[in-house]
Amino acid sequence: MTLPIDPAQNLASLIRCPSVTPAEGGALTALAGMLQPLGFTIDRPTFSDIDTPDVENLYARLSGNGPHLMFAGHTDVVPVGDEAAWTHPPFSAETSDGFMYGRGAVDMKGGIACFVAAIARHVAANGPLKGSVSLLITGDEEGPAINGTVRLLEWAAARGESWDASIVGEPTNPDTLGDMIKIGRRGSVSGDISVYGRQGHVAYPHLADNPVRGLMTLVDALLDPVFDEGSADFQPSNLEITTFDVGNRATNVIPARATATFNIRFNDLWTVETVKAEIEARLARAASDKRLRKGASSSINYELAWRGNPSHVFLTGDEKLINTLGNSIESITGRKPGLSTSGGTSDARFIKDYCPVVEFGLVGKTMHMVDERVALADLETLTQIYQRFLEDWFR
Amino acid sequence: MTLPIDPAQNLASLIRCPSVTPAEGGALTALAGMLQPLGFTIDRPTFSDIDTPDVENLYARLSGNGPHLMFAGHTDVVPVGDEAAWTHPPFSAETSDGFMYGRGAVDMKGGIACFVAAIARHVAANGPLKGSVSLLITGDEEGPAINGTVRLLEWAAARGESWDASIVGEPTNPDTLGDMIKIGRRGSVSGDISVYGRQGHVAYPHLADNPVRGLMTLVDALLDPVFDEGSADFQPSNLEITTFDVGNRATNVIPARATATFNIRFNDLWTVETVKAEIEARLARAASDKRLRKGASSSINYELAWRGNPSHVFLTGDEKLINTLGNSIESITGRKPGLSTSGGTSDARFIKDYCPVVEFGLVGKTMHMVDERVALADLETLTQIYQRFLEDWFR
Repeated sequence: MTLPIDPAQNLASLIRCPSVTPAEGGALTALAGMLQPLGFTIDRPTFSDIDTPDVENLYARLSGNGPHLMFAGHTDVVPVGDEAAWTHPPFSAETSDGFMYGRGAVDMKGGIACFVAAIARHVAANGPLKGSVSLLITGDEEGPAINGTVRLLEWAAARGESWDASIVGEPTNPDTLGDMIKIGRRGSVSGDISVYGRQGHVAYPHLADNPVRGLMTLVDALLDPVFDEGSADFQPSNLEITTFDVGNRATNVIPARATATFNIRFNDLWTVETVKAEIEARLARAASDKRLRKGASSSINYELAWRGNPSHVFLTGDEKLINTLGNSIESITGRKPGLSTSGGTSDARFIKDYCPVVEFGLVGKTMHMVDERVALADLETLTQIYQRFLEDWFR
Repeated sequence: MTLPIDPAQNLASLIRCPSVTPAEGGALTALAGMLQPLGFTIDRPTFSDIDTPDVENLYARLSGNGPHLMFAGHTDVVPVGDEAAWTHPPFSAETSDGFMYGRGAVDMKGGIACFVAAIARHVAANGPLKGSVSLLITGDEEGPAINGTVRLLEWAAARGESWDASIVGEPTNPDTLGDMIKIGRRGSVSGDISVYGRQGHVAYPHLADNPVRGLMTLVDALLDPVFDEGSADFQPSNLEITTFDVGNRATNVIPARATATFNIRFNDLWTVETVKAEIEARLARAASDKRLRKGASSSINYELAWRGNPSHVFLTGDEKLINTLGNSIESITGRKPGLSTSGGTSDARFIKDYCPVVEFGLVGKTMHMVDERVALADLETLTQIYQRFLEDWFR
């Protein structure tokens, strides 16, 4: 039986499975086929919930005597976009000029391919691990993320699984392999503000109350002043107005209602609770402030509705995990990786409730784009980094 | 042959014609039937244009030796709304407790009914007029106003018609008959502003440019400072933001574009040209101002598109017309009417290019509402006012 020691071959098998969320597309089966010869015990739970597609997932464990490392990731990919614009078909895994092309090449079938190769090489070279390794792989990271990592973690924990550390194989490097480990993520909260005015004819503004003025006043209060200047480990919190809508087509009518939606990415100076309280306080103050925008009514009649599923901010403090990974990267690439908390949310926000978690994978530059591709050299380098990490972390 | 000397009977005939724009509904035919016995020459031109319904109109002239007065108005009405909510069916002209109910009772079949009764009484009492009277009646005042008064004026002028003065019979009185003559109207201009930013992920705001901030900056510049404090004859100019839209449903995406529409009602301190220039200057200044809202890009990439068909401001200076009408009102009602330029636009804005024009009709309180109704006493009073005006103006 051949062991899956070649990351490029592993990746080609995975790319050829058209696993656009929520389709499994054969990708988990292909992965299981690589893990079986290594001795992994494999489970394939499918989770369902109302109003969202069923999702297939995979949990594979190779048990040994010692600590338990989880490698987490996903085999689902985003849609290909304009398929005609691809230089190479997105599910063909063609190689050209030192790159392998395909949807998921870096986000993140590539990371999985390298980790599997690293374990295979480790087992081939060193024999059984001095501990346990699990792969927690979802088919719903790019979708609603309801029947994916969250459920899979609950499912595994309910079966008695526990972990000492986790690496998420997302493409964390902006430009060059070795640039960046993610050791935390900002939190994220979204909400909708509705301002209710009084509809009327534009020629009689004193009989109406234009809610656009009121909503602009509230939005101003969220945009200024800034929430903070950043912390030791995080960039400044940032709030964006993602939409602002009235939907009135009549130019002679003052509308009755205006709504806006905001999203804030906040750092470790805040929690979900304190950032919500600050936003509520800013809105309440602005709504009743006498120095309002000209023409706004004396107090603003508004409603704030929080969106569900906020993300909590987290920062990983496990020095063994961070240092072992950092040293592995430096010894293979000669580069000392930055420790970052920037960027969007990831499934690490769920894993952090079970064990310390960091993220490190390929170079993300082409993710979600036409002609997503990975340097074959990077596949080899990442495999060596993961292999070195396995050796050092289990030592 | 009976002369149409009873305004209530005239109005009942008109209300029973369901002439919701653009339907003629029999209303112009009913009106022609009243005018014929008085000796009017009647034309019924229908106008057509692409993308808008055909509209029937009526021009009736009773010729005499002397000046030419035009009475202008419309027999079309707005939809009935919730018909079940009407106390009396909207096209039945039922009377109850001294009121006649029906769509168009005050806006403005009632005004036409009174004017016809006034002429009939005048002719019956005094014999032929010492001049000419025309009725210029459209079926498209409540609609797009393309195939109505504008075309009818052009059509009549092309046939050699000219007028010395005009009364528009719209319901000008806010509360009580005799309150208010309209002697002018503000101008009206609308425009659309689009701000183009750069779409991106909310977690990477430095790679995106949120157009909401930019559009709020531009809108602020239009709302503050006020355009003026009013003039001798006009209230202050007023600008309203009638809509503000982005249409982005993804809370993790910074949108690429935001648009707003504004309408300004401006007084005689401005012209269409100067008010447009002021708005253009305010936008240009705000777009390049260094003291921009926090986070906005260094200059705002925007487009301004003016809507078609602006209304020009006008003020009628014909003292004979204004004083004769004012004195008629005062002698019949004992009330000295205010001379106003407030409120929305009306077809007077088109007539003013042909002759001096004022507006005076019934009490507008119930116009466009469920249970639109007119006091029978008001019908009689307005008829007497119009009759007195005819006697005095032609003297």
